[in-house]
Amino acid sequence: MIKVAIVGGTGYTGVELLRLLVHHPQVKIQTITSRTESGKHVIDLFPNLRNHLDLKFTQPSLESLIANDVVFFATPNGIAMQDTPDLLKSGVKVIDLAADFRIKDVAVWEKWYGMTHNCPELLGEAVYGLPELNRAKITKANLIANPGCYPTAVLLGLLPLIEAGIVDLNNLIADVKSGVSGAGRKANVSTLMSEVGESFKAYNVAGHRHWPEICQVLNASAKTEVDLTFVPHLLPMIRGIEATLYSQTLRSIALEELQDLFVQRYQNEPFVDVLPLNSFPETRNVRGTNICQLAVHKSNNKLVILSVIDNLVKGAAGQAVQNMNIISGLTEITGLTNVALAP
Amino acid sequence: MIKVAIVGGTGYTGVELLRLLVHHPQVKIQTITSRTESGKHVIDLFPNLRNHLDLKFTQPSLESLIANDVVFFATPNGIAMQDTPDLLKSGVKVIDLAADFRIKDVAVWEKWYGMTHNCPELLGEAVYGLPELNRAKITKANLIANPGCYPTAVLLGLLPLIEAGIVDLNNLIADVKSGVSGAGRKANVSTLMSEVGESFKAYNVAGHRHWPEICQVLNASAKTEVDLTFVPHLLPMIRGIEATLYSQTLRSIALEELQDLFVQRYQNEPFVDVLPLNSFPETRNVRGTNICQLAVHKSNNKLVILSVIDNLVKGAAGQAVQNMNIISGLTEITGLTNVALAP
Amino acid sequence: MIKVAIVGGTGYTGVELLRLLVHHPQVKIQTITSRTESGKHVIDLFPNLRNHLDLKFTQPSLESLIANDVVFFATPNGIAMQDTPDLLKSGVKVIDLAADFRIKDVAVWEKWYGMTHNCPELLGEAVYGLPELNRAKITKANLIANPGCYPTAVLLGLLPLIEAGIVDLNNLIADVKSGVSGAGRKANVSTLMSEVGESFKAYNVAGHRHWPEICQVLNASAKTEVDLTFVPHLLPMIRGIEATLYSQTLRSIALEELQDLFVQRYQNEPFVDVLPLNSFPETRNVRGTNICQLAVHKSNNKLVILSVIDNLVKGAAGQAVQNMNIISGLTEITGLTNVALAP
Amino acid sequence: MIKVAIVGGTGYTGVELLRLLVHHPQVKIQTITSRTESGKHVIDLFPNLRNHLDLKFTQPSLESLIANDVVFFATPNGIAMQDTPDLLKSGVKVIDLAADFRIKDVAVWEKWYGMTHNCPELLGEAVYGLPELNRAKITKANLIANPGCYPTAVLLGLLPLIEAGIVDLNNLIADVKSGVSGAGRKANVSTLMSEVGESFKAYNVAGHRHWPEICQVLNASAKTEVDLTFVPHLLPMIRGIEATLYSQTLRSIALEELQDLFVQRYQNEPFVDVLPLNSFPETRNVRGTNICQLAVHKSNNKLVILSVIDNLVKGAAGQAVQNMNIISGLTEITGLTNVALAP
Repeated sequence: MIKVAIVGGTGYTGVELLRLLVHHPQVKIQTITSRTESGKHVIDLFPNLRNHLDLKFTQPSLESLIANDVVFFATPNGIAMQDTPDLLKSGVKVIDLAADFRIKDVAVWEKWYGMTHNCPELLGEAVYGLPELNRAKITKANLIANPGCYPTAVLLGLLPLIEAGIVDLNNLIADVKSGVSGAGRKANVSTLMSEVGESFKAYNVAGHRHWPEICQVLNASAKTEVDLTFVPHLLPMIRGIEATLYSQTLRSIALEELQDLFVQRYQNEPFVDVLPLNSFPETRNVRGTNICQLAVHKSNNKLVILSVIDNLVKGAAGQAVQNMNIISGLTEITGLTNVALAP
Repeated sequence: MIKVAIVGGTGYTGVELLRLLVHHPQVKIQTITSRTESGKHVIDLFPNLRNHLDLKFTQPSLESLIANDVVFFATPNGIAMQDTPDLLKSGVKVIDLAADFRIKDVAVWEKWYGMTHNCPELLGEAVYGLPELNRAKITKANLIANPGCYPTAVLLGLLPLIEAGIVDLNNLIADVKSGVSGAGRKANVSTLMSEVGESFKAYNVAGHRHWPEICQVLNASAKTEVDLTFVPHLLPMIRGIEATLYSQTLRSIALEELQDLFVQRYQNEPFVDVLPLNSFPETRNVRGTNICQLAVHKSNNKLVILSVIDNLVKGAAGQAVQNMNIISGLTEITGLTNVALAP
Repeated sequence: MIKVAIVGGTGYTGVELLRLLVHHPQVKIQTITSRTESGKHVIDLFPNLRNHLDLKFTQPSLESLIANDVVFFATPNGIAMQDTPDLLKSGVKVIDLAADFRIKDVAVWEKWYGMTHNCPELLGEAVYGLPELNRAKITKANLIANPGCYPTAVLLGLLPLIEAGIVDLNNLIADVKSGVSGAGRKANVSTLMSEVGESFKAYNVAGHRHWPEICQVLNASAKTEVDLTFVPHLLPMIRGIEATLYSQTLRSIALEELQDLFVQRYQNEPFVDVLPLNSFPETRNVRGTNICQLAVHKSNNKLVILSVIDNLVKGAAGQAVQNMNIISGLTEITGLTNVALAP
Repeated sequence: MIKVAIVGGTGYTGVELLRLLVHHPQVKIQTITSRTESGKHVIDLFPNLRNHLDLKFTQPSLESLIANDVVFFATPNGIAMQDTPDLLKSGVKVIDLAADFRIKDVAVWEKWYGMTHNCPELLGEAVYGLPELNRAKITKANLIANPGCYPTAVLLGLLPLIEAGIVDLNNLIADVKSGVSGAGRKANVSTLMSEVGESFKAYNVAGHRHWPEICQVLNASAKTEVDLTFVPHLLPMIRGIEATLYSQTLRSIALEELQDLFVQRYQNEPFVDVLPLNSFPETRNVRGTNICQLAVHKSNNKLVILSVIDNLVKGAAGQAVQNMNIISGLTEITGLTNVALAP
């Protein structure tokens, strides 16, 4: 059994990790920490876990974390980097669901996240945990930077095009929409139901932290700088991300050829599902699951890729479990085979 | 492996049965029928099942149904009763998720359902499939009348009080609220999102088909006629039922004693969870699961029991699987241990 | 023109007052205060008011308030009572949308609201602003305690029965459900969309501050103490309250007679609409309006009254404007004749 | 008083016309027709109109329509064209909220709408009723083709750019999202709350009927063919459209210059509101109103225009009333000055 700890277990990615791990056949959850809820039973905060989990929140301490094989950080940005050096030294593997290790260039990271990185020497060692791109590296990694939710949806849709070299790199657009759970479980007027229910808006058009994260991966794949326009929107619902991705092919390509490209690219991927031609993926198709559903379309003179994930699963906790399976030598899909809840 | 068929697989209880059964370790889904979608892949209608199920809808036929151990009817009222006599004769067990076998008195049934029953002789043999009440009978049954969604939520909340003989039987009120999936997956103006979103109403105040179903069980438990007022309401959400149950105790009883009564009554029940005192069960606590969460309260001079279920699971497909497990000699919780999806 | 000020204009009742007053033909909004947003344009916080209002939030000061004919307090409980004595002395009329002046018995008020009242001497003078009950008194009042949202919905449904003396006063139940805007516009985990969307629950079953407010009015009407059980619930939507009210008639009464009773009681009321028999009022029927729709039903041996309002309008800002119209000698419906937004 | 008739009054644009017209100070609604609900009181179908309207649905007949000054067609496509020739001959002005007269090229219309046009000779005479583009023509028109909902949101966002000649006409993208009321009030599985609630998807990527309508206007403005990619999406809410519009400027342009361009273009428009720089228009800002809110942004190398309307108002019934005001010589904003309902 793999012994795991979750640091910062009171947010939505924390409770989602618990949902996925309580029945994982090869995992023992030993520790779940929370500064504010320490001493309280987890099920008092999350009654959906009643009869599945008999743990209390504890104060985070290096000591208790070191007793695990894998530590998940489901914390705000800037927390994981504090304990990670010590954990790695102790032989504990770290999976950070926040952004501390996602950006290789520390100057870029510090600019977008507005703080000083306290272990930039680990940025090179950290592996960006998108298994569909980096599986081989993940297998040998001790430190996983679990991708952001938007980047996961966007990259899985764009990478086949970039890798195949068939689209204009100066004309990429990602129009992305997220359910409100992406904003986390913190007291905030702007995500009250009365504020975001029955309404829709774009936000952060001029710049969002997930933009440099996506660009870093696309640039590496393209071996040059790509021009990506990225516009996030807030949906009046809880779970789910949809990305509508626009690009221009460099030559005329039949839809069937594009479909084949995607099918080939993901043929061995357990969690990426390329839908048949003329499909419109709905976020509910993947609710509660680690699946990304993709569909390939053309509209006027543009190529349009549709991508849906559950932001809390493939966009966070599920992908973290997938990474844990890989770095632990387990079958990659273990604990991640549930069916989406629809309707 | 238990071979099962689902008749009428295009509604919400049908797809929910599939969600629960595709990973049931001791079930093989052999047949799923639909008159209108025959020949179509199930996953084309329900893309959440992609990679979980490789079946096509077929035309219903007695022949194909007889080849199974258990047949689920996820059909409109009046369909199951047509084939059930033949299926029983062939040794196939039948679980009807509709109402054909729920009411013992055929005159009452025909009045409320507006049709003639074509096998009233089976009404005596049919067992009302509420395991928490009838487990022993279900074990030996060949024909299960799977309870309605409202009755499940109401009965689990009221039965302990009736059995204990501590409440006024002439003053029972069930104020119940259901998500819109309870209305099924049929083209209907009245359940369009534009009609039921962001709004709330009571309906069928003067009489709802679930009222005689509940009364039949309560009367049997009380060994006299009870007076139950039952008012259903429609919630602007998809899944979940909440019942707020009012009654008057015949003597002064401390809240702790009532709590004990409920805890005792359900101590061995895997799917009924009595919350600690001062709890307020939320429907999301049980979303996607077969659990009923109950809480005991007093308000002014009334006893108030709160009961939540997922109408499509404990209120339909999950309870049907629970019944299948029992009549098939399997461990009762097999395939029903998932964690609720929250948020 | 009546000069008005709104104290505490950043909450939902504040912005709703603005929505109703900006086009009120006989009102000039002079002042809108906010401690936290002082100096900011109102339309920067509430862009729905763009091109309707050219005001900035100011710091609250007695001086600026005194320059008005009417001051609305759209503040948390305990604020209005601080300035009201001075305002009344200066001849300014006060309408408090919070609870400071709703309860006549200061001991009861202090128990339920957990603070010391600083002008209990005004409690006798304050008029409970339910025009359908107290119109004559309101006409002459200088201090209006605007009713709570739940009390408005419940009282309009129960008063005709109490006044007619036809129901058992020991067996009254109000099962009430509210949209989440009733919880206000404050940073709070418990009203995040991710917490309350797609879910439903009861809360505060053992006691809610609106219970003594309702009982005070019913007791006065009945000239004895009534036994009311009051259970609030939280709806996954923004606006609207529905109350399902259960009572037992003291003698057998035909539904038509009850319908007549309600029609007679409210025949001259511009904002109470008794629907025809067999109607089911939906909250959307009254969205954005000052209307209460009522319907009379019988269910088994109980009388069931259904009542819907918009909690922010008839349950708060609209009723406040109605009261302002009355105390200012204007036609009562002025500024309140809009049609509900449906769908 | 202008006498008006509404043909097809049972859909959402019909009831919205009624909501706007019942208090229009210069309109008398004489006739509202419905084949299916003829003889029924309008308020029985739409209880939000109780006490505002005392009319019954009638069978449509040329006779009854001719007795009006203006006839609104709130009907499915293909209905208005049947009676319009006769109505025009009789001197009645016609405003079609459907698509019968929107496309000038009858071949294009017949291809996209799948039927034969029965009065193509009127297509030249019909004026496309976007007042911000065609006010002068509308003033003199007898036949108004009221624009589609998506085209209204997209055109108001793109026209200033096209008219100024500053963007690449081969690289225009409109990523548009609509609330479900846009799909109308007809029995349909695909718009049930259980199907579209808590989920999001793109649809009709390869072609939507509003695409040729938008292109026709843009082409005329650009005096050449533009390349517009148009992708519609379905939002889990009732009212509101948001369009995120991407384009590439032909030269480097400061954001302030773009802002000025939009402010100038719409400075005299009562229903187009250009928000200050760095604003993110929310659909709720305009709920229930005839306003279009626009915001100008840059993101990476693209210009991003955000546009929100209420699809049932500025996208349908409100714009129809605006057109009626213009063709009737009334003040353009009459009856359209209400404040948006937020929250």
